[in-house]
Amino acid sequence: MEGKTSSSPERGELLHEGKAKRVYSTSQPDLYIQEFKDSATAFDGSKKGTIGGKGSVNCLVSAKLFKLLESRGVKTHFVDLISDNEMVILPVEIIMVEVILRNVAAGSLVRNLGFEEGKPLVPPICEFHIKDDAIHDPLIADDHVIALGLATAEELGILREYGKKINETLIEFFDGIGIDLIDFKVEFGRRPDGTIILADEISPDSCRFWDKETGKKLDKDRFRFDLGDVEEAYQEILERTGASM
Amino acid sequence: MEGKTSSSPERGELLHEGKAKRVYSTSQPDLYIQEFKDSATAFDGSKKGTIGGKGSVNCLVSAKLFKLLESRGVKTHFVDLISDNEMVILPVEIIMVEVILRNVAAGSLVRNLGFEEGKPLVPPICEFHIKDDAIHDPLIADDHVIALGLATAEELGILREYGKKINETLIEFFDGIGIDLIDFKVEFGRRPDGTIILADEISPDSCRFWDKETGKKLDKDRFRFDLGDVEEAYQEILERTGASM
Repeated sequence: MEGKTSSSPERGELLHEGKAKRVYSTSQPDLYIQEFKDSATAFDGSKKGTIGGKGSVNCLVSAKLFKLLESRGVKTHFVDLISDNEMVILPVEIIMVEVILRNVAAGSLVRNLGFEEGKPLVPPICEFHIKDDAIHDPLIADDHVIALGLATAEELGILREYGKKINETLIEFFDGIGIDLIDFKVEFGRRPDGTIILADEISPDSCRFWDKETGKKLDKDRFRFDLGDVEEAYQEILERTGASM
Repeated sequence: MEGKTSSSPERGELLHEGKAKRVYSTSQPDLYIQEFKDSATAFDGSKKGTIGGKGSVNCLVSAKLFKLLESRGVKTHFVDLISDNEMVILPVEIIMVEVILRNVAAGSLVRNLGFEEGKPLVPPICEFHIKDDAIHDPLIADDHVIALGLATAEELGILREYGKKINETLIEFFDGIGIDLIDFKVEFGRRPDGTIILADEISPDSCRFWDKETGKKLDKDRFRFDLGDVEEAYQEILERTGASM
């Protein structure tokens, strides 16, 4: 396969297929392969479509950001790129809590909680949501996470600390390429020894990016709300971040 | 007025009318009167009705529980009963955060968050909701309360501590009269010197009470879900608590 390094493990059976990614076992027990798809969904899967080139953009941008975060001391599941839409990752047990960091009010904060869109959030808000489309990924408080057995109080402290560090790193990076990081969602996983590492992806699917000059949205909101130029926005993020094989 | 004590202040102008209560000024600047109505609403005001005798039950039960809590060191807005549906209270600026304590999963925990009804919650869950029917009193986390300026982090610590103490006191009291306290909502207010005290009411409108033997619901869920015997349930709570003028 073009772009595949000589040390890449062989792809094994499909272990999990989500809305935007597939995860495969490999010939090596402690390595999986995560493949990024072009298919796009929104509103808990009720809106479906395809964004040409999305899999590749999200894979390359995620790899770039995972490497940046690793350099700042945040452990991630990223091991290596093997093609423009496949990466080798460390297997984890995904923590079923989505961690959302918000620097500016948008999305559900405006829709559900009465915030004014565009209001700066100082300090940033860190939210936990149950990762479960069937009940619409509801916002919850620490007590619910613990009562549902999704994570311990100690783990939530770690998620909050990592979320803050990831946010600070990404704000600085995107500021340098003319983009305001409005908010983003990250997911974490437990390694066999209980260590928590960053998993999933960081991409225009999981972040809100607003151009600093024009305010133009350069993320999945263009797909969600039929704003046009969807593929162009993904390509622009790829170019500005300088992400590549 | 029958039952009115000689020292009761005179009722002045109507300051606020809510769904279930009215608040009046009085001839004394630091005393208000809270009057309890028979009118009942549910689902953010979309269901309306009347529960005969409710105003009186809720007033007398609240007075009884406020006195009990005062004896355990929880400061409340309660001063005195002046009739079976009016109490003299201390004026407060209501904190626009509803505090919900849950000992057993029911209501929105089951409807929205995937909990199994009847699941014991050990330790109890303490929730904060924005007090705003227009946006359906949404569950929020501490960060949102602070970002919206509804309360400070220090105040949230106090609300959580008071909520826990109130819960422990009420569990013990209701256990002694054959009732499981499933959950309840309380509201707090700031006094002019910034002190936070318990306000509003504690009644079958704001609590879930399940009979320990039969599991029968003895609270506003009988009205919400048309379970019948609504007035009888309120009267039973009045009788079992021994609340009176």
